[in-house]
Amino acid sequence: MATRIAFLGPVGTYTEEAALKYDPQADLQPFPSIAAVGLAVSSGITDQGVVPIENSLEGSVTFTLDLLISQTGLSIYNEIVLPIEHYLMAKPGTHAPDVQVIYSHPQALAQCRNFLERCFPEAVQTASLSTISAVTDMQESTLPAAAISPRRAAELHQVEIIGQSIQDNPNNVTRFAVLSKSDHAPTGRDKTSICFSFERDAPGSLYGALGEFAQRNINLAKIESRPTKESLGQYIFLIDCEGHREDALVNGAIEALSSTVTWLKVLGSYPRWDQ
Amino acid sequence: MATRIAFLGPVGTYTEEAALKYDPQADLQPFPSIAAVGLAVSSGITDQGVVPIENSLEGSVTFTLDLLISQTGLSIYNEIVLPIEHYLMAKPGTHAPDVQVIYSHPQALAQCRNFLERCFPEAVQTASLSTISAVTDMQESTLPAAAISPRRAAELHQVEIIGQSIQDNPNNVTRFAVLSKSDHAPTGRDKTSICFSFERDAPGSLYGALGEFAQRNINLAKIESRPTKESLGQYIFLIDCEGHREDALVNGAIEALSSTVTWLKVLGSYPRWDQ
Repeated sequence: MATRIAFLGPVGTYTEEAALKYDPQADLQPFPSIAAVGLAVSSGITDQGVVPIENSLEGSVTFTLDLLISQTGLSIYNEIVLPIEHYLMAKPGTHAPDVQVIYSHPQALAQCRNFLERCFPEAVQTASLSTISAVTDMQESTLPAAAISPRRAAELHQVEIIGQSIQDNPNNVTRFAVLSKSDHAPTGRDKTSICFSFERDAPGSLYGALGEFAQRNINLAKIESRPTKESLGQYIFLIDCEGHREDALVNGAIEALSSTVTWLKVLGSYPRWDQ
Repeated sequence: MATRIAFLGPVGTYTEEAALKYDPQADLQPFPSIAAVGLAVSSGITDQGVVPIENSLEGSVTFTLDLLISQTGLSIYNEIVLPIEHYLMAKPGTHAPDVQVIYSHPQALAQCRNFLERCFPEAVQTASLSTISAVTDMQESTLPAAAISPRRAAELHQVEIIGQSIQDNPNNVTRFAVLSKSDHAPTGRDKTSICFSFERDAPGSLYGALGEFAQRNINLAKIESRPTKESLGQYIFLIDCEGHREDALVNGAIEALSSTVTWLKVLGSYPRWDQ
């Protein structure tokens, strides 16, 4: 039976593209928010869920980090890395020089700023709620219009691609987390994500926490901080390290860390994405 | 002559409220984006600029961090901490039980979710572009409507406050940075913000960097990471420490750090905000 995978919808998003890349045979089900994907997984509506966790230009997706911190019954089971390519699309037969309005999510418009300034200096840039709703906004426009959207949106609507890979920065890559009720068995090329907090003087205590990894020669891939939401200046730290939580070294570091922090949660061990 | 202060507009925002709290006599000038406030200061259009830098619930304002990292001729001169209080406002004479639509920025709607579910379970929540445009959306509504906005928006429009401090979490506080061409002279109760990056293995090298502060008993108030925008997994770290960059200890830590990092920038030393 196909794995049921919830993804951050609607249909046509980069998240759907990532889920298809991860498991082309899956039974993909769109959910309206990152929190809804988390609940779909923890409640058993689906087996797994795919949400964006980090973009190479924008940084961490804080909604996803906060979900992993706060929701129980949810682990990181895998990761997917997807290059983000923006496409310019219009109603079939549209002549590019006639385009007067360009719709997209403000983030996508910003990521194509140089392209738009050079090729469409006169066009009005108009914000849409998502890169997907930009396509319907474009289709409903009375003026000649174009939309900046994922390639998959063009496949799902009756539109024509008039420009491809129009983002200014070629290093636009998003990392997605595959969520499940439990994490992945060791594969020999794994990563482990944990989060923890201290009663007080958190950034100072972080030095000691990092020492547990440095002393064991465990490489760290990422460090991030999030507010505890209790008081300004209090943080929860998230660390990605190399290795599986069942490896003796990683297990030792987590055990040692547990005794110095106020709170610690292992978010999961999972295979490292290698292209 | 009054200090000219650029702020993230439009008029009526929490940023304007913070700027007024910081300098009630200032000549306040609204600018349309965080980047525009930065350019107003670096180009000399204004003497100073006020932008949000961190919220106790949402975390860092990444636009502001990226501006400080990338733009030259800009330092942190001061900081302001402001409690965020959401107000419910409507056209004069509106009877609360009649309200059918509630406008606000999605973030403000989310921050008042419990209040809205209990007091206005039947009202339709509608997204506005900002908490300020929510007021004009409400005024133009044909149905009985209310808007969630800063108190100052009520002073600027002909509207009536029908509920105050309606946010669910009382710990909603925003920290603002006052930007200037140069930073502040020592006051004896200062903070210093720096950012730096490493050629490779950044999170691992961070342990050594934090050691420069730990060995000198310099307290760290905050640590944050941002993508370099060059490649996934490469980060710039931002640190706030206690003390002024002219203090011998802080100066020593920065000097030592400079020799181990690829790139380092002092964002400024400035008085610590104490209520």
